[in-house]
Amino acid sequence: MSSDLASLGDEGLPPYDVIGFDADDTLWQSEDGFRANELRFVELVAPYVPEGIDVKAALTAVERKNLHTFGYGVKAFAISMVEAAITISGGAVPTGVIAELVEMARTQLEEPVRLLPHVPEVLAKVGAHYRIVLITKGDLVHQTHKITTSGLAHHFEHLEVVLEKDAETYAKLLHRFGVAPHRFLMVGNSVRSDILPVMSLGGHAVHVPYHLLWDLEHVEHDELFTELSSLADLPGLLGLG
Amino acid sequence: MSSDLASLGDEGLPPYDVIGFDADDTLWQSEDGFRANELRFVELVAPYVPEGIDVKAALTAVERKNLHTFGYGVKAFAISMVEAAITISGGAVPTGVIAELVEMARTQLEEPVRLLPHVPEVLAKVGAHYRIVLITKGDLVHQTHKITTSGLAHHFEHLEVVLEKDAETYAKLLHRFGVAPHRFLMVGNSVRSDILPVMSLGGHAVHVPYHLLWDLEHVEHDELFTELSSLADLPGLLGLG
Repeated sequence: MSSDLASLGDEGLPPYDVIGFDADDTLWQSEDGFRANELRFVELVAPYVPEGIDVKAALTAVERKNLHTFGYGVKAFAISMVEAAITISGGAVPTGVIAELVEMARTQLEEPVRLLPHVPEVLAKVGAHYRIVLITKGDLVHQTHKITTSGLAHHFEHLEVVLEKDAETYAKLLHRFGVAPHRFLMVGNSVRSDILPVMSLGGHAVHVPYHLLWDLEHVEHDELFTELSSLADLPGLLGLG
Repeated sequence: MSSDLASLGDEGLPPYDVIGFDADDTLWQSEDGFRANELRFVELVAPYVPEGIDVKAALTAVERKNLHTFGYGVKAFAISMVEAAITISGGAVPTGVIAELVEMARTQLEEPVRLLPHVPEVLAKVGAHYRIVLITKGDLVHQTHKITTSGLAHHFEHLEVVLEKDAETYAKLLHRFGVAPHRFLMVGNSVRSDILPVMSLGGHAVHVPYHLLWDLEHVEHDELFTELSSLADLPGLLGLG
C-alpha cells in the first residue's frame, strides 16, 4: 500500500471527479467460469493426446497466439478450445467432444451473473457521492448481457466495453468523460488492465485482487499502489465510512 | 425515393448537425467474405451430410438460433459453422474439416479492409461540412481492426461499435453526440439496421444498398426513404456537389 491516493483537500472537497470500476472479477465472477471450462477441457481432450503433452499449457499457448486476432472473451476462448483440441490430439479428438466444447462456451455465455459480495451497497454508497463509470473489456454481447442483467447498470453514468484496457484507451475515455487524469480513480482486480495504464496517465488506482487471475493478465511490475482485500473497504477509503 | 430528407432552410443552413455512416458494406466490403466462406462451408461439409439436407440453409438456421447468445460477427459465424458441421453430419465430419473452418474465420478476421468505391473522397467532402460519426455493429476486435487499418478513422468525430443497431441504441448515441433526432442523418446499406430505427426516432436516413445482404438483415417494411445507387451521390444530395 502506498500514498498514491489523493487526499481530501483542506476544504474537504472530494479528491476525484469520476471513479471507474472494472467489471469481471471486480463486480461479478468471471474467471471461475473459464477455470471450470479449462478443467473440463483437459478432462475431455487428454484421453486423445499423446503422453507428455501439457494439455492446459497448450490451450493457454493457443489462446495467447489467438489474442491479437480473436480478442478477449468467451467466443475467442471457444474457438481456441476447438483449435487446441484438434491440434494437440493430431485430429484424433472425436467430433462429439468438439460439440461439447461449443456447448460449454454457450453455457458460460448464458449463465446468470454472480455478483461478488457487497457490490450493490458499495456502488450505491460511492455512486451517491461520485460520478461512477464501468469500464470493461471483452466480448460486446457477453459484457452487455452481464451489465444489463446485473441490476447494476443504473448506478453508472457510462458503461464502456473496450477492446483493450491500455493507456491510450483510458486517455480517450477520460477525455470523453471530461475528467483530468489526476481527478480520476480506477478500481479493479487486474494490475495489468486496471492499475498500471491509469497510473501511467497520472491517474489513481485501487487494486482489489480476486483469488483467480487469468494467465494472460499476469504482469511484472514494481509500482506501488493501494490494495484492498475487499470492495467493501472502498467507501471507508474514500471517507464515506 | 421520398421527400423524407430535410431541405436546406431559407437561410441555406445545413439541415443536419451530425451525419452517421454505417461501415460494413457501406464503407468497405464485408458480406463478400461471409458469402465466400459459406460457399466453402457447403463444399467442405456437404460430402458428410445425408442426401436431402440443405447445408446452406442449415448453417443459416444455426446462426439465427445463436444470434442472441453469440451476437454478430466472424467469431459468432465461426462457432456456428463448427456447430452446424457437426450437427448436420451427425458427427461424421472429420476434425480436419473443422480445423479448416476455424482457419477460414481467422483469415476472414485478418484480411485487409477493402474500401468501396469513392469512400475516402466522399468522407473528406462531407466531413468538411458536417460532424460525421461511424456507427457499426459486430465484433469489437474485428471492427476496431478494420476501422484503424482503413485509414478513415481521422474523418470521424466518434467511432461506435454497438451490440445492436436498434432505436434504443441510436437514441443513446444521439444523446451522447448531443444531437436531436431531426438534425441527424444516417447513411447505410441495411434497411433493418441503418434506416428504420433512425426514422422511428424522427431522424433521417439515406439507403445505399449493397449487392449482397445477409439473410438475417432482410426485413419487410413499407417505409419510404431516399435511396442512392452509390455513396458517390451523397455529396450532391447534400448540396455539396
